[in-house]
Amino acid sequence: MTLINAKLIDVKPGYCEIQIPYDVTLTQQHGFFHAGIISTIADNAAGYASFSLMEEDSSVLTVEFKLNLMSPGDGDLLIAKANVLKNGRTLTICRSEVFIRKNDKEKLCAASQTTLIELKNKPDK
Amino acid sequence: MTLINAKLIDVKPGYCEIQIPYDVTLTQQHGFFHAGIISTIADNAAGYASFSLMEEDSSVLTVEFKLNLMSPGDGDLLIAKANVLKNGRTLTICRSEVFIRKNDKEKLCAASQTTLIELKNKPDK
Amino acid sequence: MTLINAKLIDVKPGYCEIQIPYDVTLTQQHGFFHAGIISTIADNAAGYASFSLMEEDSSVLTVEFKLNLMSPGDGDLLIAKANVLKNGRTLTICRSEVFIRKNDKEKLCAASQTTLIELKNKPDK
Amino acid sequence: MTLINAKLIDVKPGYCEIQIPYDVTLTQQHGFFHAGIISTIADNAAGYASFSLMEEDSSVLTVEFKLNLMSPGDGDLLIAKANVLKNGRTLTICRSEVFIRKNDKEKLCAASQTTLIELKNKPDK
Repeated sequence: MTLINAKLIDVKPGYCEIQIPYDVTLTQQHGFFHAGIISTIADNAAGYASFSLMEEDSSVLTVEFKLNLMSPGDGDLLIAKANVLKNGRTLTICRSEVFIRKNDKEKLCAASQTTLIELKNKPDK
Repeated sequence: MTLINAKLIDVKPGYCEIQIPYDVTLTQQHGFFHAGIISTIADNAAGYASFSLMEEDSSVLTVEFKLNLMSPGDGDLLIAKANVLKNGRTLTICRSEVFIRKNDKEKLCAASQTTLIELKNKPDK
Repeated sequence: MTLINAKLIDVKPGYCEIQIPYDVTLTQQHGFFHAGIISTIADNAAGYASFSLMEEDSSVLTVEFKLNLMSPGDGDLLIAKANVLKNGRTLTICRSEVFIRKNDKEKLCAASQTTLIELKNKPDK
Repeated sequence: MTLINAKLIDVKPGYCEIQIPYDVTLTQQHGFFHAGIISTIADNAAGYASFSLMEEDSSVLTVEFKLNLMSPGDGDLLIAKANVLKNGRTLTICRSEVFIRKNDKEKLCAASQTTLIELKNKPDK
């Protein structure tokens, strides 16, 4: 989160929003946000949204995710919004959408579907 | 590739290997390689493996991928190996495995399956 | 669609709903709808939702999909609802949710994210 | 397995092969094996391969899978081969390839990557 300068905007039970402002070190050869950054923000948002429904002394791990990249990350702000679809005893399923903002317009840039696992009694220090 | 210090080890038709040596800026709270880095190396290897079968004046874009994270990135070297499963006229399907090396032993850390699209007559400058 | 007795309930631009009533031949060992049926209804709904935005003389093919199975298909009616996320020139991205109805209550049973390709000038006879 | 006439050809620890002979009820409008059948055989092979490494009184459930459809199911025999990538304490990760045989030639038709969960002390009757 620090290396890529991600900001936690909102966390509610089953929901999370994260933003990353434009920074040239996060871009690929065309000056757009790199797919690896888009993937990371989608995954981080899913992690926080899922953790918001777990017990305090648990930690959360991403089991797997699938991400569709739909538009280039051409803009000045990357925004990820994650919603929990199912909060099971062991596994949580989450969907994230990543938007790119340019000239005050937001465009859907990527969408993911993620499976996470709750590790009970393993607090993240 | 520069920000994360990735090294292109091998590219053959339909195959690519990339390595990333340990660097503390690439790790999460436990000192392991961050999932975002693991995802990025898998994606980059898939991109090069696919591009190796495309025309010179094409460029390649990741349409989507699915990644399973199987072991923590606990080690000193991250290694991604990608193989093309199908090289179609428009779409290429690729699988990557990511290994983590510790004390000279390699362990399967993640595996992905990726769909890429060839953009003809659009060379990457 | 015939073998599994699927009914097309609604098709609007970018949206489709399909239902399958309970039939013992579609179930697994516990009498629940088989995962293969759940996967098929999610895929079919995605196909119709995507095709609704394509040209008349095109046909549509599923490139790939990812499906999370969240609850057993324990009920009397399976309902799939698909929405197009992105309708590109070549590729369409779609999300489906599959619900299972039991005693007049609907429960989220599965969710998928699908990539489809438009084959122009290839009408499906 | 009965409805679609699937035959269990081989099960070894971490491996499974299943075959389905051509039958007109399993095909789509062009007479090829339906994507739903291809998806089901890939999933079933993953289930058996994973179960082969689990305890006797466990049962296995598919958490999620991702499938790429690469060639039409145009042939007389569908063959799925599944290999376990990781057999964890709770989750198992598996890859399947589905081949279509026509005129004694096999062609890669689909490939999947699947996450399964072991339910201990819940034998499948």
